[in-house]
Amino acid sequence: MALPAPLHGVIPPVCTPLDARGEVDTSSLARLVTHLLDAGVHGLFALGSTGEAAYLTDAQRGTALEVVVKAVNGRVPVLAGVIDTTTARVLDHAGKAAGLGADALVATAPFYTRTHPREIADHFRRIRTAVGLPLFAYDIPMAVHGKLPPALVRELAADGTLAGLKDSSGDDGALRRLLVGLGGRTARRTGPAPGFTLLTGSELTVDAALLAGADGVVPGLGNVDPAGYVRLYDAARAGHWERAAAEQERLVTLFSITDVGPESEMGRSSSALGAFKAALRLLGVIECGTTAIPQVPLGEESVREVGRRLTAAGLIKLPYG
Amino acid sequence: MALPAPLHGVIPPVCTPLDARGEVDTSSLARLVTHLLDAGVHGLFALGSTGEAAYLTDAQRGTALEVVVKAVNGRVPVLAGVIDTTTARVLDHAGKAAGLGADALVATAPFYTRTHPREIADHFRRIRTAVGLPLFAYDIPMAVHGKLPPALVRELAADGTLAGLKDSSGDDGALRRLLVGLGGRTARRTGPAPGFTLLTGSELTVDAALLAGADGVVPGLGNVDPAGYVRLYDAARAGHWERAAAEQERLVTLFSITDVGPESEMGRSSSALGAFKAALRLLGVIECGTTAIPQVPLGEESVREVGRRLTAAGLIKLPYG
Amino acid sequence: MALPAPLHGVIPPVCTPLDARGEVDTSSLARLVTHLLDAGVHGLFALGSTGEAAYLTDAQRGTALEVVVKAVNGRVPVLAGVIDTTTARVLDHAGKAAGLGADALVATAPFYTRTHPREIADHFRRIRTAVGLPLFAYDIPMAVHGKLPPALVRELAADGTLAGLKDSSGDDGALRRLLVGLGGRTARRTGPAPGFTLLTGSELTVDAALLAGADGVVPGLGNVDPAGYVRLYDAARAGHWERAAAEQERLVTLFSITDVGPESEMGRSSSALGAFKAALRLLGVIECGTTAIPQVPLGEESVREVGRRLTAAGLIKLPYG
Amino acid sequence: MALPAPLHGVIPPVCTPLDARGEVDTSSLARLVTHLLDAGVHGLFALGSTGEAAYLTDAQRGTALEVVVKAVNGRVPVLAGVIDTTTARVLDHAGKAAGLGADALVATAPFYTRTHPREIADHFRRIRTAVGLPLFAYDIPMAVHGKLPPALVRELAADGTLAGLKDSSGDDGALRRLLVGLGGRTARRTGPAPGFTLLTGSELTVDAALLAGADGVVPGLGNVDPAGYVRLYDAARAGHWERAAAEQERLVTLFSITDVGPESEMGRSSSALGAFKAALRLLGVIECGTTAIPQVPLGEESVREVGRRLTAAGLIKLPYG
Repeated sequence: MALPAPLHGVIPPVCTPLDARGEVDTSSLARLVTHLLDAGVHGLFALGSTGEAAYLTDAQRGTALEVVVKAVNGRVPVLAGVIDTTTARVLDHAGKAAGLGADALVATAPFYTRTHPREIADHFRRIRTAVGLPLFAYDIPMAVHGKLPPALVRELAADGTLAGLKDSSGDDGALRRLLVGLGGRTARRTGPAPGFTLLTGSELTVDAALLAGADGVVPGLGNVDPAGYVRLYDAARAGHWERAAAEQERLVTLFSITDVGPESEMGRSSSALGAFKAALRLLGVIECGTTAIPQVPLGEESVREVGRRLTAAGLIKLPYG
Repeated sequence: MALPAPLHGVIPPVCTPLDARGEVDTSSLARLVTHLLDAGVHGLFALGSTGEAAYLTDAQRGTALEVVVKAVNGRVPVLAGVIDTTTARVLDHAGKAAGLGADALVATAPFYTRTHPREIADHFRRIRTAVGLPLFAYDIPMAVHGKLPPALVRELAADGTLAGLKDSSGDDGALRRLLVGLGGRTARRTGPAPGFTLLTGSELTVDAALLAGADGVVPGLGNVDPAGYVRLYDAARAGHWERAAAEQERLVTLFSITDVGPESEMGRSSSALGAFKAALRLLGVIECGTTAIPQVPLGEESVREVGRRLTAAGLIKLPYG
Repeated sequence: MALPAPLHGVIPPVCTPLDARGEVDTSSLARLVTHLLDAGVHGLFALGSTGEAAYLTDAQRGTALEVVVKAVNGRVPVLAGVIDTTTARVLDHAGKAAGLGADALVATAPFYTRTHPREIADHFRRIRTAVGLPLFAYDIPMAVHGKLPPALVRELAADGTLAGLKDSSGDDGALRRLLVGLGGRTARRTGPAPGFTLLTGSELTVDAALLAGADGVVPGLGNVDPAGYVRLYDAARAGHWERAAAEQERLVTLFSITDVGPESEMGRSSSALGAFKAALRLLGVIECGTTAIPQVPLGEESVREVGRRLTAAGLIKLPYG
Repeated sequence: MALPAPLHGVIPPVCTPLDARGEVDTSSLARLVTHLLDAGVHGLFALGSTGEAAYLTDAQRGTALEVVVKAVNGRVPVLAGVIDTTTARVLDHAGKAAGLGADALVATAPFYTRTHPREIADHFRRIRTAVGLPLFAYDIPMAVHGKLPPALVRELAADGTLAGLKDSSGDDGALRRLLVGLGGRTARRTGPAPGFTLLTGSELTVDAALLAGADGVVPGLGNVDPAGYVRLYDAARAGHWERAAAEQERLVTLFSITDVGPESEMGRSSSALGAFKAALRLLGVIECGTTAIPQVPLGEESVREVGRRLTAAGLIKLPYG
């Protein structure tokens, strides 16, 4: 499908359910897509960080994207992550994603290597040229260990290389400067990059990003409570900012499920991904909470705590614990 | 004066005007205080990073604080930075600040040294105990090279060690989690730390911080356009969020004065401090734009560019350039 | 071939020559292998960072490793890098490398993701178990953004998971502590991990590492001057430490070829990889100095400067420039 | 006394003994100076990081330096740390240190602030000009959060601003490049900065630094075992590199006393400083092992473990534990 320009709304980074052996659980994934579309999300981002793309083999990535595209069946746009270290490797993924029917690509700057801004620009330009799909830059310093220079994003937005930005930098001040530079809340559509899409990946400050003029959000927690993010988005679009803020607060509280794994035993990322999957299992959406190797799985007590917090949030009716 | 709990509103970190020899220009500083109070600010923060405290000798710090306290004359609270590497050195500054009439102290975690969270807690507790003044924690990872652990802030807020937090971390997601943990937008005053003050130092996302429930802002750019920040604050308090956002956008544009120094020749910090002082001189508030050694001063063309941007912002009437 | 335990000597990380279109230049690569073996190196490390593994597609990696294994023809051990973000992806590379005849594998900790030490341990254990080849840990914080915890290396050395460590951390103090912990200069072979191999990737302090008891070195610059590193190694083995230091100084001077690319135009990594390849071309070993996309290539003047420095080092006879 | 150029040998960073109330224990400090001089050290560095300078008030710093200068009584040069955030503050300390009889000053780059290399150069030039004492740059990225650019050090060495460098960066490759750039092992005295002194602060790789051509070492552990470092230095000077390496290994083993504090309870720095002082107390040199606030003190069991390791090292005769 042709991607709207700008794209807008709630575009969750879809989790990749795995079975007990660690293989992609295609029927759980199809159910997850339905769960998200039923809640009214506006697009899906497959093979992102929340989708554990960095943990999946090429074959598993292909399977996951194929299932998402088929389950969506053209109802909303599907963005596909093409996460790899450098250009040639990303191009391999990009060709496959295009072949599998993705509507747009999402690429980070090179990582593992040390890369000059001129090289980052060349990287995005080559991807855009080689594959006939809209390209989003994925700014995720926590993974890539460098922030995309805002001047570079502006340049690549203005010359049409980039269709949009997924900003997972957590640097809301820089996001604001970028938005204002592109025309601000009222003049974005007549600014230097009229169709450019700005999506925040900061699921805890979505009301703020929308107030600042962002077009949408890519919330990991949106796997668990897509309806909450849709309500938040709708309230913001209607100018009901305090209602949006109240919904955001509810989601911030729910986000505490990501803290259940004990810090002495596992990383914050494994705890968060484990919690999202545990929640989806408790909600009956997916079969199995397995995360990809070598992540430490959540223990039983941590999973029970996820259940209690889902119950407190009103997402499941039976008490856990 | 007794500090309101919570403190609220616009509390600029006051610049410290210097004369051509680099000494504190006391009459310019007094004029700057008047400029800020006339605009309706709700408090002042002397000897912060924007006040170049890290560049001033102890004698200069004393002079600056004395002038601010005298010029304010009890009309608004004066917070005093007590920036130094570790506890005993901070206590020296704290005693002097109390003697000079500060209404509250603002201290960072230890820096230069590598410090365990238990040691950071002990640091704040000792400062609070030794000096009979409300104590604000200053979270500024860019300077201190570590973020205050949110759990630690919560603990020190709840037990009364801290009266508030000045959050200059730029991590608005963590700020949101902290606010929600303290009760959120509606229940802060009945939460675990009812009088605790949360001030953002992120001058580019003030509308967002207020929407999230922060009590106020400490904007460096507020030296240049205090009335703008007061309007932004008032709009937010009145629930006019889109008006607040529009005012914030105007201030984001004005913030571009901090970029005028060429990156090849000077640091971002020197460029920003130089721009604030150049602007105050062009506005007729202070005598001389000198920044403290060893900062590279703005060149003439950069100062002219500051003038052009002030003109574009409607802050000065005559065109520059 | 069975890998000696410990492995020792000079084991250059082989550059991957590319043709003008960016494809692996197999005949140049075979010539490079001969160039290295003729100089007396003790092993080869294919598909490392210097081999631009992070820039090569899977197909290109396979081609490069196949050529190296064939050209070596069992004369020295071939270690193969299996660089990818996480375990399952690394296992894909590891299976291919084993099939192509690598004698050992070299894997980093997971990257892109945030990974707990327990997860890093599990990562190495799973790789070791799945593939029947000796496994070296590759400690390269510049790329992976975390240093392998020394206690973890010790544990995995003692339990047989790791056959060795390639230490490219530049932290020679930590390397010394590790060496002493394994028994030191005189008791390594009767210590907790008697066959464990310690290779430094710090090509500027090889004399020091050997004096400390390291078994060998993996020097990027060894592509250009393998004989120099062999002389340095032999001098050290013979206890001629001042001769070793003099040779090291000569190589430090030669290393300045990595600085020729202007910092305003390219990254330090592109400059270094470009210089190694330019030198190999000027020495007549490879056909073309192309580096992989999206790296900025060295300009003509920079290449001439490489030539001048090779001449000054006595590696080429005709003057350049 | 006139400082030799270059300065050479073992120059311990003197610990600052405190009494139970946290005040400088002047008689213990005088005894510590005697302990060091009796072992044959070649100079002393007062008010460095190991001296807890960042934890001491200005008055305490003055007391400590005064005691050291008096106790040394001209027998070896006394270098004085003048650690503070920026130039004007450092100048205050520098004037006092000169007045108290220091033979040279040791200053870091500015910290807390973000500082451009041009500003760092200006910083050192102003200190050198204002105070008539030789000036050493103190490269300590762990504290200052930036490494001194080697090109800058070379420039300031060549123009006479700097008399020397104390390199605590742990980056022995960069140190090697600097040494070679100044003429290397054989041509330093006829190079661009003939009298320049290069001291390593990396107490675990002293043999390596001396082999590379460094002039001396500033070892924190040298407080505990100064004779060991003098033996190491003498062996290296005599060209007995393997004897030097063996002595270094013994000291690396002894360095394990810095690990005794449990990581869950205290920082690595507090553990190391606590261990040095505990060792000095157990050796009968100082009265009390107190470290400055807000450091967590070593627990009793940790102190016993220090004792056991001193015993194992042959430094104390009676068994502990």
